[in-house]
Amino acid sequence: MPYGYNGRILRVNLSSGEISEERPDELFYRTYMGGSCIAAYYLLREMKPNIDPLGPDNILVFADSVVTGAPAPGFNRYTVGAKSPLTGGIGESQAAGFWGPELKFAGYDAIVIKGQSPKPVYLWIKDGKVEIRDAAHLWGRTTGEAQKLIREELNDVRVRIALIGPAGENLVRYACIVNELKHANGRTGMGAVMGSKNLKAIAVRGTNKPEFYNKDTITRLAKHFAANFLENPSVRGTHRLGTSELVSLQNVTGQLPTRNFRSGYFENADDISAEAIHEKLFVKAEGCYACPVTCKRVLKADHPYHVDPAYGGPEYESIAALGSACGVSDVVAVAKANELCNAFGLDTVSAGMSIAFAMECFENGLISREEANGLELKFGNANAMVRLVEAIAKRDGLGNLLAEGVKRSAEKLGKGSERFAMHVKGAEFPMHEPRVKGMLGLSYAVSPLGADHLTVEHDTDFDFNAPQVFLDQATPLGLLRRLPTSTIDSDKVRMFCYLQPHFSFLDVLGLCIFTFGPVRFFTMTHLVELVSAITGWETSLWEIMKAGERRVHMLRVFNCREGFNKKDDWLPERMFSPIEDGPAAGNKLDQEEFKDALKLYYEMMNWDVNTGIPSKAKLLELDLGWLLPEVESRQMESVS
Amino acid sequence: MPYGYNGRILRVNLSSGEISEERPDELFYRTYMGGSCIAAYYLLREMKPNIDPLGPDNILVFADSVVTGAPAPGFNRYTVGAKSPLTGGIGESQAAGFWGPELKFAGYDAIVIKGQSPKPVYLWIKDGKVEIRDAAHLWGRTTGEAQKLIREELNDVRVRIALIGPAGENLVRYACIVNELKHANGRTGMGAVMGSKNLKAIAVRGTNKPEFYNKDTITRLAKHFAANFLENPSVRGTHRLGTSELVSLQNVTGQLPTRNFRSGYFENADDISAEAIHEKLFVKAEGCYACPVTCKRVLKADHPYHVDPAYGGPEYESIAALGSACGVSDVVAVAKANELCNAFGLDTVSAGMSIAFAMECFENGLISREEANGLELKFGNANAMVRLVEAIAKRDGLGNLLAEGVKRSAEKLGKGSERFAMHVKGAEFPMHEPRVKGMLGLSYAVSPLGADHLTVEHDTDFDFNAPQVFLDQATPLGLLRRLPTSTIDSDKVRMFCYLQPHFSFLDVLGLCIFTFGPVRFFTMTHLVELVSAITGWETSLWEIMKAGERRVHMLRVFNCREGFNKKDDWLPERMFSPIEDGPAAGNKLDQEEFKDALKLYYEMMNWDVNTGIPSKAKLLELDLGWLLPEVESRQMESVS
Repeated sequence: MPYGYNGRILRVNLSSGEISEERPDELFYRTYMGGSCIAAYYLLREMKPNIDPLGPDNILVFADSVVTGAPAPGFNRYTVGAKSPLTGGIGESQAAGFWGPELKFAGYDAIVIKGQSPKPVYLWIKDGKVEIRDAAHLWGRTTGEAQKLIREELNDVRVRIALIGPAGENLVRYACIVNELKHANGRTGMGAVMGSKNLKAIAVRGTNKPEFYNKDTITRLAKHFAANFLENPSVRGTHRLGTSELVSLQNVTGQLPTRNFRSGYFENADDISAEAIHEKLFVKAEGCYACPVTCKRVLKADHPYHVDPAYGGPEYESIAALGSACGVSDVVAVAKANELCNAFGLDTVSAGMSIAFAMECFENGLISREEANGLELKFGNANAMVRLVEAIAKRDGLGNLLAEGVKRSAEKLGKGSERFAMHVKGAEFPMHEPRVKGMLGLSYAVSPLGADHLTVEHDTDFDFNAPQVFLDQATPLGLLRRLPTSTIDSDKVRMFCYLQPHFSFLDVLGLCIFTFGPVRFFTMTHLVELVSAITGWETSLWEIMKAGERRVHMLRVFNCREGFNKKDDWLPERMFSPIEDGPAAGNKLDQEEFKDALKLYYEMMNWDVNTGIPSKAKLLELDLGWLLPEVESRQMESVS
Repeated sequence: MPYGYNGRILRVNLSSGEISEERPDELFYRTYMGGSCIAAYYLLREMKPNIDPLGPDNILVFADSVVTGAPAPGFNRYTVGAKSPLTGGIGESQAAGFWGPELKFAGYDAIVIKGQSPKPVYLWIKDGKVEIRDAAHLWGRTTGEAQKLIREELNDVRVRIALIGPAGENLVRYACIVNELKHANGRTGMGAVMGSKNLKAIAVRGTNKPEFYNKDTITRLAKHFAANFLENPSVRGTHRLGTSELVSLQNVTGQLPTRNFRSGYFENADDISAEAIHEKLFVKAEGCYACPVTCKRVLKADHPYHVDPAYGGPEYESIAALGSACGVSDVVAVAKANELCNAFGLDTVSAGMSIAFAMECFENGLISREEANGLELKFGNANAMVRLVEAIAKRDGLGNLLAEGVKRSAEKLGKGSERFAMHVKGAEFPMHEPRVKGMLGLSYAVSPLGADHLTVEHDTDFDFNAPQVFLDQATPLGLLRRLPTSTIDSDKVRMFCYLQPHFSFLDVLGLCIFTFGPVRFFTMTHLVELVSAITGWETSLWEIMKAGERRVHMLRVFNCREGFNKKDDWLPERMFSPIEDGPAAGNKLDQEEFKDALKLYYEMMNWDVNTGIPSKAKLLELDLGWLLPEVESRQMESVS
């Protein structure tokens, strides 16, 4: 290991105000590498099971990786990890933008935050100097207001700030963290954990870019990307229209989640399509650190809602969750709701799906107009949707219920509302339809994070979109044959078992799937070459895949400690009922087929087929022997 | 898969004289790639279990790979595979030299030979033309005589010939096949299978070198090797002294098998060392196709034995098996015995170890002088050793017993001789000591071929030799920590599980461990680059490792069909008793530790821990679903 990777990890105890740092050795860095694995490492090592995720015992980790900040497209993401207040299992979420590289340039690979501040504070990190500062004047403010005040008082407009809004302060279980007001660590409620610690923001400024091992190779590949990325159909699409291009693509194939997943076809999809957004609202495209794709949209509107461009435009996930999933076709309302989510610090997916759940309950008479803050809460009521976003953030009326997420809401509501709660492990469904893409259902069911659309990228299981590109780029994994889309047979389970570590690795290093996914520009060969060039480690796709597997198992073991097992790897009943209409009408998953696939997945993963707990041998094989005591006590428990 | 690999497989039925060819598609080639996997593919697909390995139902496959003949060091080996008459399980052996590339240039990737010729024949293949020719006049001849006659009658001195000697004709169970009189497909008795088919030789001549995908990369890396290989300490040693350099290295560390593995230290090792050989017998160094290492020795002597340089000099394995293992210190006798093995077509390892077994039996009064062809068969009797080699090939007296291998010999002899039979699954021990290198015992026990020193290269588990080079080169596998030599704990089992597929892959493609092993010149990154450049496939170390795992499982399933299971994965009792003297005196394996390691190995491999049979999920994961029917009937069998 010639490079001698030499990073620092910052530790902050908010209860005591103590600040320290540590320098793990290179073996640590090469084994865990970054992001999700570094976060999980500290959570597993230093946190007891069964603690309150919103109490002082939770640990909140912000983690870059050994490659963050490298001057090439896609190396800008960081992970926030903690026990999730939404699922009770492992929580984590990645965000892009500039904050991750800035933390690295400020001298740190990660921040491990413990305890609970007695009063609101924020963290200020500049080139290795760290300060806990008062945030009393920031508390209750939107992200935009707080960011402005922090920059003013630090007297530096170039400070990068990751922060929470009122939703995080109010412990909404799916509150998010945003940086630059538009890049979100969205899922699993990391913003609520931050709020529970009375931590409003982490402001960073760094001027020391690390020396990477082989600058020539990095530069060559970055230039190669810049000169040629438009030739890749997937990246070109993302560049031209952002992720919103998916709205139409999903709809024509019957897989645009509509009215809380009752349908996969939204009759008004054109109104919320990329084309509609670009025609009505588009200001400009923006991007992330060192990336020419500029897939982010900046939008603006005045009527019927004022939409502030500072908060960015909605991604596909947000458009579908706040739009079609709620039956809403007013694109300005969708953009406004997106703005409010970023300003208040709410995950757009969980917020949209919580509202969709409430709408279906309302239409079925399980929630009254009075209970619904006086709103006529039918699918398609754009104004009700926008007002509920704010109510959730403020825990106002029905918002207070929905702030708990659909699983807890249904438990409290009762009356059979559980059948409308589209979640896995408490995490609301993202905007992809398992009844059309067979592998996706397995992916939702087994992800340690609950329903997660990035466990493997959905396009890899979709004939329509980019199968040839995928086949070409997936051959280094030994995936040589095109498989039909909606099946979930043994070939598909194998494909999932090979794709999951690859995508998992992207979240270890904080790489962007829009540059590194198997249908994207950078191939797996480029990936190996870039990681080697940046770190100086002679790595390989084998080591990369094993690092990805290591992450999957660390997250899985975390959940095992919290009592999760086989019974939690399951889908809502609706997935086994037909899609109601549209091009994929009638599609459904078969329970027995799905059970078989799940069993085969456990077997391929070398997990206990009765409990879903990783085997001792598998943990040893991944050099995770230190986790054996965590699973051994669980191995013997019987599972219903 | 852009290159469109397009190879041909020759089929010959020696019973009917029918000759045909087939052109598998690229998916077949990318999945099975060559050598061992192609051989196992045809054996598993087209041969029934429980057939007589020396009868007409056995199938004999000669297989190159998709990279054979590429103009770079190490791409010259071919595999011969069949059911082994020695073990009753899968048999196969690789040989280097020039025959493999010549077959490729003659138009074929492999030859699948079925049936049994009614009379001695040989096969003549020239640039796609194939002929079965009479070999009556060659039968009974040494390899040297037969090669000369074939070249004369074909009127071409450049014909490359793989052939058997009298040992193969006489069905000695460990008869080998040699090409150029000095490169042997040595182990597991492939020469006996060839003899049973009345096939004396396969002569090939090819003038059509294939076009490889990226010639520039191949040339660049071949030049890089040629210019720098002497800087690698392992390759430099092999270049300077051949493999015979190991004699001294093994002896000083107490692991030179001596007197049938009673000791690991030979007091007269200096007399059979590389230095002794070079001083007394050395003529010149030779090499293989496209390789500058020239690790082969050409030796010559007149007294006390005439040693013919045409048959090459003994490798380390042969020196130790015919020398120290028999207590023989006369280096000329060792060279002579090596010559006889190549001339008669005997595997030097099994021959030497069969003689060592007989010597220990003799010294313990289990074989009388009369039964020993009148020889005073004590350890150290060089002349007796030389005479027994010939007797085995001719099945003369005691030679007829020993021609069956030590397992069957001990069964016939009885009288407790089993304790001197050093074998796994019937295959005699090669010249490496599991009581010094802990991983080696596991390797011997679980190899589908029986005791096999190339399942993983021994140096990788040896602190003394090349640990830093190994650590540097093994990091792409994620093997980051140096482990103590003689242990066999969970870290070592993990290391074995990662190294086995890598070495297994070398036998899929027919690559040389002296250029590609993890302590050698070409790194794993070079390996990926070269395979990609030669084939045009964008491959990776992941795909390579999975291809290696695929081979391990195909061979394992073959053995399962033949009734092998957990009980066959075990070592001779001597391995659990102390080494008698020398620097490693007292070293032994612990039975309970070894059982634990074996169990953990099964678990890491995802095999049934009670039977040692690969799980359904593992076969599906390796895209070997077609083998499920082969194991399902075995899964339920109980194992003692």
